[in-house]
Formats: sequence, C-alpha cells, structure tokens
Amino acid sequence: MGNSWIFREMPEKEERKARKQAAQKRLYEYQLEMKEKKLPVLVLVEGWGAAGKGKVIGEIIKNIDPRFFNVDTLAEPSEEETRRPFLYRYMVKIPEEGKFEFLDSGWVEQIVKERFSGSMSEEVYQARMGSIRCFERQLKDQGYLLVKLFFDISKKEQKKRFQHLKADPDTKWRVSAWDKEQNRHYETCRELFEQCVADTDMPETPWHLIDASDVKWAELQAMEILCESLETALENCRKEAPLLPNTFPLVEMPALSQVDLTAKVSRETYKRERKELQARLQELHNRLYRKKVPVIIAYEGWDAAGKGGNIKCLTEAMDPRGFEVHPIASPEPHEKARHYLWRFWTRLPKTGHIAVFDRTWYGRVMVERLEGFCSENDWKRAYREINEFEKELHDWGAVIIKFWVQIDKDTQLKRFQDREKTPQKNWKITEEDWRNREKWDEYEVAVNEMIQKTSTVYAPWHILPSVDKKYARLLAMKIVIAELEKVLFLSDS
Amino acid sequence: MGNSWIFREMPEKEERKARKQAAQKRLYEYQLEMKEKKLPVLVLVEGWGAAGKGKVIGEIIKNIDPRFFNVDTLAEPSEEETRRPFLYRYMVKIPEEGKFEFLDSGWVEQIVKERFSGSMSEEVYQARMGSIRCFERQLKDQGYLLVKLFFDISKKEQKKRFQHLKADPDTKWRVSAWDKEQNRHYETCRELFEQCVADTDMPETPWHLIDASDVKWAELQAMEILCESLETALENCRKEAPLLPNTFPLVEMPALSQVDLTAKVSRETYKRERKELQARLQELHNRLYRKKVPVIIAYEGWDAAGKGGNIKCLTEAMDPRGFEVHPIASPEPHEKARHYLWRFWTRLPKTGHIAVFDRTWYGRVMVERLEGFCSENDWKRAYREINEFEKELHDWGAVIIKFWVQIDKDTQLKRFQDREKTPQKNWKITEEDWRNREKWDEYEVAVNEMIQKTSTVYAPWHILPSVDKKYARLLAMKIVIAELEKVLFLSDS
Repeated sequence: MGNSWIFREMPEKEERKARKQAAQKRLYEYQLEMKEKKLPVLVLVEGWGAAGKGKVIGEIIKNIDPRFFNVDTLAEPSEEETRRPFLYRYMVKIPEEGKFEFLDSGWVEQIVKERFSGSMSEEVYQARMGSIRCFERQLKDQGYLLVKLFFDISKKEQKKRFQHLKADPDTKWRVSAWDKEQNRHYETCRELFEQCVADTDMPETPWHLIDASDVKWAELQAMEILCESLETALENCRKEAPLLPNTFPLVEMPALSQVDLTAKVSRETYKRERKELQARLQELHNRLYRKKVPVIIAYEGWDAAGKGGNIKCLTEAMDPRGFEVHPIASPEPHEKARHYLWRFWTRLPKTGHIAVFDRTWYGRVMVERLEGFCSENDWKRAYREINEFEKELHDWGAVIIKFWVQIDKDTQLKRFQDREKTPQKNWKITEEDWRNREKWDEYEVAVNEMIQKTSTVYAPWHILPSVDKKYARLLAMKIVIAELEKVLFLSDS
Repeated sequence: MGNSWIFREMPEKEERKARKQAAQKRLYEYQLEMKEKKLPVLVLVEGWGAAGKGKVIGEIIKNIDPRFFNVDTLAEPSEEETRRPFLYRYMVKIPEEGKFEFLDSGWVEQIVKERFSGSMSEEVYQARMGSIRCFERQLKDQGYLLVKLFFDISKKEQKKRFQHLKADPDTKWRVSAWDKEQNRHYETCRELFEQCVADTDMPETPWHLIDASDVKWAELQAMEILCESLETALENCRKEAPLLPNTFPLVEMPALSQVDLTAKVSRETYKRERKELQARLQELHNRLYRKKVPVIIAYEGWDAAGKGGNIKCLTEAMDPRGFEVHPIASPEPHEKARHYLWRFWTRLPKTGHIAVFDRTWYGRVMVERLEGFCSENDWKRAYREINEFEKELHDWGAVIIKFWVQIDKDTQLKRFQDREKTPQKNWKITEEDWRNREKWDEYEVAVNEMIQKTSTVYAPWHILPSVDKKYARLLAMKIVIAELEKVLFLSDS
C-alpha cells in the first residue's frame, strides 16, 4: 500500500542542525527519567541493506550513558537457536528495566529473507505474524517501550551504495549475498517488506518509516522518533494494561475440593508397575530425541505434596543427556528486572529435549499474587499471557504436561511434623512453609482460579492425588507416556 | 492456519442446560451493571450462510431489556453508502452508552464477498484491514466493548441446511445467490474468511470462533462468550487507554504569535478578485461533482474572527445542491452518548459533495479540553485519533482543507464591543464569548499544540490572518482553489 509509505519532509540544513541539538538534549533528559521510572526500551532497527542502520545506531548511542544500552547485530539464527521457538532469540535479548537494547535487524529481516528464499509457507508466515503481535503486546503490557524503525531507500540508491562499498577492498565484504539479492529482486523484496511491516503495525507498537536516502536526515528522523516515543511512553508509565478476554478453548476442570484423594496402590504393584512404566518411558524418550520433539513438564502443588519424589521417579527413566530439571526459586535481580516470563523462555528445552520445571511461571498467579510481589493488574493479566505463552510452545511442536500435585491439609501437617522430627528431612521444612500453610484457603482460591483459567485444550492441567505418593508417581508416568505416545504415534510421521 | 481454529468442547446435554441457565443469569446481571457504568456494547456476528447467526441473536436478545438493544441486518451497501467512506455504514451504527447493538454480518462478510467476486484488489484489501483495526481500536479506547463472533460450519453441514431451506417454499428465498456461491466454492471462501479473521484478530478486540454445527450449542457458546467479554470489560471500565505515539508525517507550523496579521487589501482589489475567484471556484465545483471528489472544509478560529463571513464568501460561488454547511454546537444527548467523532462521521459529504464545518471535531482539543468536558486522557488521545480520522478520509479520496482564522486579542475586543453596540449584530455576542475571551492565553496554548500535532502532510492547517476580513476571504478562496486544482488536474484522470 503506497499510501502508508509517506515520510517526514526533510528540512533545510540549518533547521536540521537546530533540530538535532534539540533532540540530543531531549534524549539526554529522557534517559534520566527512563532510568528513574524503570522503563525498559527495545529499539528494533530494520530496513534495506546499506540503508545506514548500523551507522545511525552508532550515532544515537553516543548520546546515551554506556552503562545503559546494549547493541546486538542479529545474524542468521545459529543451530542452537533454530532448535528453539521462533521468538526465543528475540525474547532472550529483551532489556532490563531502565535500559536500552538496540537490535540491528530482527524478526522482519529474518522473515522476509526466509519468505524470499521460498523456505516459509504462507501458513507459517501467518503464524509468525501472530507470534510477533503477541510478543510485542506482552512486552508493551508489561511496561516495555518498543520503538520500531524501518529504513527505506530506493533501488537506485541501494545500488549506488553497494557499488561504493564494493569499490573499496576494506568494505567489500560488507555487501552480503542477501544484500545483492535484495537489489537484484528489489520489487519482490519491497513487497515482502511492506507486507511484513503492515502485518505487524500495531497501534501501540507501530512502525516508523524512515526516509534513509540521506544518512544525516535518517539519523535525525530516528532521534526525533525515539524522543517522541520516549515522551509518550513516559506519560503512559503508570497506566494499567487492559485485561483481555480469554479466546482459548478451555477444558472444564473440577475444583480441588472435589478431587478424590483416597486412591492408593500396594507396594508390590507399585514396584512392578514403576519398573514397567520406566522402561516404556525410556524407550519413548529415545524416540522423542530422534524425532526432535521438545517436551515441557511443569510441576506445581502444595508444599510437601511430593513433587520432588515424583520428578525423581520420572527422570530416573530418562537419558540424562536429554533432559534437564529446573528448580524455580524466587527470581534473581536480573530476572526481576525483565518480563516475568523471560526466565522461563531462557530455560526452554531444545527440540528433542525434555525440560522439567519444579515450580513454574504459575508462581505469578499464586505466590506473587498472594504475597503482593506483583500488582493486581499483573496477575489478572497473567492467565491470558500464560495461555499465549503455552500456545506459542504448542505451535512450535512442544508437548506440554502440567501437574498439580494435590494433598489435603491434614496430610500436609503430618508430613511437616515428620520432616521436623526426622533429622535427614529437617532441611526440607522452613518457617516459610508454616507461613504458607496458614494461607492454605487463600491459596486454594488462587489455585482453583488458575486451574479453571489455564486448562486449555492444548495444555490442560492434570491433577495428581498424592496422599499416596506411590499412586501419584505411577499416574504421572502414565500421563506422560500417554501424551508422548499421542505425539509420537498419532501424528503424521 | 488450521491451528487457530480450535473450538470449545461441546458438553453433554445436561451440562449444557445448567450452563445456559447460569449464562442467562449472568447476562441479566451484567446488563444492569453495564447500564450503570454506561458501557456501550457492539456485538458483531459473522460467519457462513445458514450458520444460525440470526437465530442465535434472536435467542440472546430474549434475555435483554428491549429498550437497551438494537439489531441490524446489514445487506449490500446502498448507493448512498457506497458514496461514503468504507467505515461509514458501520460507524453510524455504533450504540449509545449502556446499550447493545447487534450486527448480523458486517465488515468481514462485505470484504470476503468483494474479494470473492474479484472486485477488490490486494492493495484495497490491505487498506481495509488497516481501517478496521483503527476503527476497532478507537472504539475500544473510547470505552466500547466490541464482541466479535464467527459462526463456523462445514461444507457438508451448510449444504444440508440449504437443502432443508430450499425444500420448503416458505424458506426457499432465504438461500441467496451468495450463499450458493459459498457452498460451491467453500474452500476458497474459507481461505478468505480465515485470512480476514486473522488480519483483524486484535488482542483487545479478538475473534471468538463458534462451532455452529449444533444450533443449541452455538447459542450457548455465544452467550458464554458474551458474558465473559462483559465481565472483562466491566473490570476494565475505568482504565485509561494508553497514549499512542504519532506515526503520521507532520508539517512544521509556526506558533500563532509568529503569524503576521498586517496583510490587507483595498476594497477595489477585494471586489475584483473576489469575483474572479468565485467564478473559478464555481467551475471547479462542477468538475468536482462530475469527478465525484468529496471535499471537507473545516473552519476553526477565535470568536469574532470572521468565520461566518468567510464561509459565506466561499459558498456563494457554489451550487447549493452540491454543498452543505454544518454549524457545530455542543453535542446533543444522543451524540454525547457515542464516540465523539460519530457526529462528524454522520455528517460526511457524499462523493462529489462539499461539506463545510463551522467548528469541528477539533472542539475535543480546545473547548472540551479547557472546560473539562472530557478527561485529560481523552483529549490527549484525540490528536492521534483525529489524524487517523482524517487519514481515513484522505485515503477515501477526500480533499481536506482546514482553516484557522486568526486575529489578535485587541481586534477581538473591538469586534465584541461593536457587536454589543450594533442592534442587528447583538445576537452574535453572549456572556460565553466574554468568558472564553478571559481564557485567551490558555486557548492559545491549546491551539498551538493542536496545530503542531495535527498538521499532517495530507491535511495540514492553513492559518488565515483575518484582521482584514477581506484579505482572509480571498486567501481562503485561493487555498481552496489551489487544493482543488491539485486533485482535479494533477491526478491521473
């Protein structure tokens, strides 16, 4: 749509100078305010090869305190990165509060390149657009400022710049094969760029088109846009993000109080079945590895419900090179300073691997909710954000298995007392456990709400009655086996 | 993308019954709360022919107080409607505060139909998507709840229903030619529907997909989704919408204090030029009419600056069948109860016509801002909303000419005194004029901000120095002539 590609009008040189000084002054002031208000800023710089992206970033950062920005030039995804969800390499780069992250090319370039080469279907393209819109909105809702710049130059101008670069042996290497393709098939690439820009042009994370025919003018435009965006974001700073209606199909789930906890198995049955199930699991794990299916197993449950033993029973059967257990404690300062899902994105398994989470991202709607570690708006938004996160993982091809390990209040008391009495279990019980126990009823309300609102058809909760831990362990293994069989044998391979 | 078309799981009949009762009860309660909180609700029901859209709407409204809803079945756009911007027919239907509006089909059906028939280019499609996203976001920002339902049935099911309808002479007429096309080219239509749904699936105005294979189940899904959406919206009710960064290219404008007001013309020159310019204008107006270009001329300015005389001078030259003057006073109750741009949308000219606005939508950022008739968040958002509104008109093909009629404070005082002394002018001066005059400085700040922030390249402000009214009139005519010549002679016809 030619219509949307209208640019700012280039002023005279004199005026440009005055405006640059004004922009520098504003940028200086805003960065102080931004630090104070803990605003994280992600600047995405996309555009044509030789449009001057890197150069302009270089100029802008001269005006920023070096402790408070970082620049990344994203090349081809590495083998490691291709084995993670599409958004992974972008999510891991998001800045901390009060800091700038500049990305020299990002999702637009990656997608246009893949589409140009013909390696991306229309279906995958549509899915990517959905992922990006969701990613950007989640950042924005969490208080991030995302500034998206597209540097535009004409075919002729690009050709001229390439010739200039190629003429000099020192800069010749900078013209890549992809750059050359861009110029040779400029019109095709232009269409792909325009479509990708249009498809990711969201009101709150809009694209800013930069006329990059003149480098100095491009720099001024970028500076001014950055200033304007910071100004708006600083004004928005304390606004609550809206709650979004759920749009994911949910599975009806029982309330915790309705769960039957009487089930138990004998020691003999347990021993026999455990062995059989572990053998089966081992086999499936190997197949999984070869088929490169990623698996995410999430454990939540009451203190002393038996999560640790359950996880141990499960992982005993697995090849240690193919799984990892992530015990999740309270976040570190550098984790706290980012989007709360960041520390889970960075812990995602590679394709073919299993990641077991001992406590999870659901902390947001349990402990963080009840202890006031996040705002009401934050945890209320989280149900939807978590459903989106898990949908992203599901679309990537991951198997997601979520366990709630359930016991009653009396059983917990007995186990707590037992832990206190038994020296080798003593480390397992703390003051905090007793404090949490006092809030059992509040937790139960929160857990019920969580289970109702996040049991999507693609990632439902499984409740494990764990008064008899043996029973819970066998059940967990059976569920894992069933889910893995589904993906290994019912799919199209 | 098959992935996104996951539906809720149909429960057993017994459970369905219980859930329906629960939903009815919730709907009853929510409509009371919705009335109290003045929440306007637009329910868009889209989907396949014979999917049961009308029937389900009929069932839902049984649960709503008849004074508080309205249902519209949108057929083909009328000739009148095709001569207005694409969004016009939807914008005029938006509900008042505290009321429901149900649309039985809307923009999705209209677009898919046009695309299917091949009468819509890819470029126009992209532009429509942009318009819709903007329209929906503006409603949402203004506090509207938009619930979008898509009723899905399979090709086979649709065919069965059509056969059933056709078998009965009483219902035969209900199967339209477009319905038949849908079934014959189901896969093509499905692709078009899916793409349109994906392209307008915004986080805050998402699509809800309804499995309509069973009518009772479809009804329950729609009811539950409506309830869930109302619940979320009622929780969001008092949240401020975020400010959005400007993304439209702006023209640098002078501050009002820098405008030279000394220009004047002699009575002779005025008489001669006025005649010449009016003749030219008349000629252009005829051409405009034949070429079907719509023109919007907006007047703002200080009290007693000479807007009325200026407008009169302009319109004298025009064929009265081809223009309309809209004097804009404070909004009527039914206007106040809707989005503030509604009363301007409903006053838009048809193609080939000229609409002159004596005061405009800019009231939002002047009088409404200064008198507290809207919230700070409202007027701060308005710059962007107005730029979007005018962009929509520009993309439709309209010429937009905005005049600020400028005088100094002393000139106003003289004219006020003159009005008070002259009996035939006495009606023109009120207490309010004097009160506004006291706020001159505050107004000047607001006007300067307005002119800076809304002088887009496609709809810039023109400042008319009007201490000499004759000079201002000639200048206005010259500007109008130049703008019309641009569109009549420089474009591609």
